[in-house]
Amino acid sequence: MTYGKVFEGLRAYCPQAWKDYTCHDFVKGLGDGSLPHEAFLTYLRQDYVFLIHFSRAWALAVTKAGNLEEMKAASAIVHGLIHEEMQLHVGICAEAGISLEELEKTVELPQNMLYTRYVLEAGYSGDFLDMMAALAPCVMGYGEIGSLLDQSATSKTYREWIDTYGCSEYQDLCAELGSLIDKAVITRLGENYQDTGRWQTLLQHFETATRLESNFWGMAFDAKDSA
Amino acid sequence: MTYGKVFEGLRAYCPQAWKDYTCHDFVKGLGDGSLPHEAFLTYLRQDYVFLIHFSRAWALAVTKAGNLEEMKAASAIVHGLIHEEMQLHVGICAEAGISLEELEKTVELPQNMLYTRYVLEAGYSGDFLDMMAALAPCVMGYGEIGSLLDQSATSKTYREWIDTYGCSEYQDLCAELGSLIDKAVITRLGENYQDTGRWQTLLQHFETATRLESNFWGMAFDAKDSA
Amino acid sequence: MTYGKVFEGLRAYCPQAWKDYTCHDFVKGLGDGSLPHEAFLTYLRQDYVFLIHFSRAWALAVTKAGNLEEMKAASAIVHGLIHEEMQLHVGICAEAGISLEELEKTVELPQNMLYTRYVLEAGYSGDFLDMMAALAPCVMGYGEIGSLLDQSATSKTYREWIDTYGCSEYQDLCAELGSLIDKAVITRLGENYQDTGRWQTLLQHFETATRLESNFWGMAFDAKDSA
Amino acid sequence: MTYGKVFEGLRAYCPQAWKDYTCHDFVKGLGDGSLPHEAFLTYLRQDYVFLIHFSRAWALAVTKAGNLEEMKAASAIVHGLIHEEMQLHVGICAEAGISLEELEKTVELPQNMLYTRYVLEAGYSGDFLDMMAALAPCVMGYGEIGSLLDQSATSKTYREWIDTYGCSEYQDLCAELGSLIDKAVITRLGENYQDTGRWQTLLQHFETATRLESNFWGMAFDAKDSA
Repeated sequence: MTYGKVFEGLRAYCPQAWKDYTCHDFVKGLGDGSLPHEAFLTYLRQDYVFLIHFSRAWALAVTKAGNLEEMKAASAIVHGLIHEEMQLHVGICAEAGISLEELEKTVELPQNMLYTRYVLEAGYSGDFLDMMAALAPCVMGYGEIGSLLDQSATSKTYREWIDTYGCSEYQDLCAELGSLIDKAVITRLGENYQDTGRWQTLLQHFETATRLESNFWGMAFDAKDSA
Repeated sequence: MTYGKVFEGLRAYCPQAWKDYTCHDFVKGLGDGSLPHEAFLTYLRQDYVFLIHFSRAWALAVTKAGNLEEMKAASAIVHGLIHEEMQLHVGICAEAGISLEELEKTVELPQNMLYTRYVLEAGYSGDFLDMMAALAPCVMGYGEIGSLLDQSATSKTYREWIDTYGCSEYQDLCAELGSLIDKAVITRLGENYQDTGRWQTLLQHFETATRLESNFWGMAFDAKDSA
Repeated sequence: MTYGKVFEGLRAYCPQAWKDYTCHDFVKGLGDGSLPHEAFLTYLRQDYVFLIHFSRAWALAVTKAGNLEEMKAASAIVHGLIHEEMQLHVGICAEAGISLEELEKTVELPQNMLYTRYVLEAGYSGDFLDMMAALAPCVMGYGEIGSLLDQSATSKTYREWIDTYGCSEYQDLCAELGSLIDKAVITRLGENYQDTGRWQTLLQHFETATRLESNFWGMAFDAKDSA
Repeated sequence: MTYGKVFEGLRAYCPQAWKDYTCHDFVKGLGDGSLPHEAFLTYLRQDYVFLIHFSRAWALAVTKAGNLEEMKAASAIVHGLIHEEMQLHVGICAEAGISLEELEKTVELPQNMLYTRYVLEAGYSGDFLDMMAALAPCVMGYGEIGSLLDQSATSKTYREWIDTYGCSEYQDLCAELGSLIDKAVITRLGENYQDTGRWQTLLQHFETATRLESNFWGMAFDAKDSA
C-alpha cells in the first residue's frame, strides 16, 4: 500500500524523525501490550481534545481548497471526524472507564496544544499545500503504524485501536488522500515541484508536524497523573 | 414557524432591506411564473459558483466555532451543501438544459463575487458571531421566501425550487440554526446582547448581507446574455 | 522605469483589462482636467474607505510574509498608508471641501466593497503570493498612471493627485515592490514559475483585481449624487 | 502606573499564574545578576524568533481592528517591533557575542513555538479582543517586570534589559495600550463586560498566554546547550 509520491518524498526528507514517531515506545507498547493502561488513558483523553482541533484544521482546508474535488475530500474528512470518529472515540473512552463528562473536562496538555496550534497557524498563514504537509504526518503516520501493528502485534490488549487504523477502510482513506495530495502539489507546483522553494516549506511543515507527533506520544507515555 | 429571537432582532433592524430582498420581483416571478426562463438560468449558473463559496464560508464557521455543538451544526451544513445540495443543483440545472461542463465554466458575476467575498472576509476578520450574522440572510431568507411561496404561488413553473425551501425539512433546518444562533449570541454576549457594540456590528453584517441578496436577485433578473 | 519581471508577466496576461484600467476615461479626465469635480469628490470619499481596507490587506501580508525582508517591506507600506497617506488624504479632502467628519460618514459603495473584500479574502484563503498578485494592480497601476500623466497632463486641475503618484518617490516604491515580488515568486516557485498552476492562479488574481480597479473608476465617474 | 481596568481584571483572574510569570527565577536572576549568562544568551536567541512571530501577530491585529484608532495603535507597534526593536535586539545580541548570522540560524524551541502559534491561532480564529487578551501578558508583563526590577535590581549585569522595559517610554506604551484595550472591550461588550461569555474566553486566553510566558522563561533557564 502506497500513500502517494509526494508523501514518499516528504517522508524521505526526515527518515529519523519519521522513525522516532512511527516506532516510538508508545507504538511498540500498543503492539506488545506493554503500554501502561494509564498512559493509554492519558492518550485517549488528550486525543479527544486533539480531534476537535484536528477537525477544525480540516474544515479550514475546505475553505482553502482550490477546487470542488479538494473541497469534497476535505469536507468528507471533517464530517467523518466530527460525526463518526469523535463518537467512536467517546465509546472507546467509555469502555476504558472515562465518561463523556470527564472527557469534556480534559485539560489540554502543552504538547497537544503545540501540535494543533502549529497546524492551524500554518494553515491560516499558508495555503492548501501547507495544510496538507502539516496534516499528512497524522493521517498517514497512523495508517503506517496501523498497517505495521496489524501484522506484527503480539498482544490483543490494544487490538481495537490497531484495527481502527490497520483496517482496509482506513488504509484506503490514506491512499486516496495521498493521491489527492499528489494531484494538489503537481497541479500547483508542476512536475518538478521538488526544485521549488515551496517544496522546502512543505518539507519543513511535514518534519515539524512529525516531530510534534513523537512529542505527543511522549506526553502520554510520561504523564504521571492523568486523572 | 420562527427562526429564533436573535434572527427576529436582526430582521427588525432593517425591515426595508429585508422586504426588498424577500419580496423582490425575482421572487414574485418565481411565485406567479412570470420570471423569464433566461433569468432563472442565469440565477442557477451563478448559484452554482455561489454554493462553492457559501460552503467554504460554512467550513470556516466550523473552524471558528466555540464548542462541539456549533462545530457539529456547521459541519452538517457544509456536508449537506457539498455532498447533497450541489449534486441536487447539478440535477436541476441538467433538467433546465445546463450541463455540468457548462456550469463549471460559469463566469462569476461581480454581484455574486461581492456577496461571497464579503461574507468570507467578515468571517476571517471577525468571529463566529460575525459569520452567523452574515450567513443568516441567505439561510433564513430562503426559508421565509420558500414558506411564503409555498402558500401563495399561483404557478407551477418554479415549483421544484419553491419546494426545496418551503419543505418542512428546510424549515426545520432554519429553526434549528435559529436556535443555535440564539444560544451562540446569548452565551457570548449575555441576555442583554442588544446593548453591546458587538450587536451593532452584527446588525451591520446582517443588513449588508441582506442588501447583497437583493443585489444577487437583481443580477439574475437583469442579465441580458446569460450564455 | 520598470516594476519588475513578474509584474511585466502579469500585465502581459491581460493587456485589454490593463488598458481599460490605466486609460480609463476617469484617468483621461485627470490629465486634461475634464473630470467633473463631483466625480473626483466621490472618488476621494470612497478612496478614504478603500485606504482603510487596503491598509488591512497590507497588514495581512506582514502576517503572511515568508521572511524578515518581506515583513519589513509590507510593514513599511502599512505604516506609510495609515500614518502618512491617510493623513495626506484627509488634507486633500479638506482642500476639496470634505471635512474629516464627513469622510468618516462615507457610505461604502458596492464597487469599493467588492474590490477590497476580494483582495482580503484572496489573501486570507491563499498565501503571500496571492496577496502580491491581488495588490499589485493598485500599487503599480497608480505608478504607471502617475508616470504617464506626469508627462502628458495638459491641465493643472488635478496636478496634486498626479504628482503624488508620478513623483520619483512613488516610482521608487513601485520599483522596490516589483523587485520584492520578483524575488518572492522566484524563491517560492522557481525560475520557471510561469509553468506552474500557481502562476495561473496569480494571473487570475491580477486580472480580477485589475478589472475591479476599472470598476472603481467607473463607480466614481458615474456616481450621480455623491453627497 | 496602571495599565487599565480590563488588564487589572484579567490579571486578577489568575494571580498565581501571573506571579509565576512575573516573579520567575529567570526574572529574579535578571535583578540580582545571578542568571547564568548562557541562559540569557538562549533567551536572546529564542527571543529573536519570538519577535518575528510577535510582529506577525500584531500585524494580524491591524487587519482585525474595528476602527482607525485601533489600526493606528497596532500598526505603530508592528512598525516599532520590526523596524526598531528587532534592530535593537540584534545590537544587544552582538554585544553578547551572538552575530546576526548566528541569530538567523536559531532553531525555534518547542516552548517558543507553542507560545507564538497559540497567540496567532487565537487571533485568526477569534477577533480583535481575543488578540488583545492573548497579547497583553507579554506587553504588560514585561512592563510590570521592568518597572519592578528598575526599583529593586541589585546588580548591573542585566541593566540594559531592565532599562528597556522599565523606562518611562515603555511604561507609557503599556498605559496607552491598556487604555486602548479598555475602550475596545467596553465598546464591544458594554460596561458589564465581565458578565459575558466573551469575557470568560478572554480570561482563558490571558491565563494561557501568561502560563506560556512562564514556560518561555523556563525554556531559557533550563536550556543545557544553547549553542
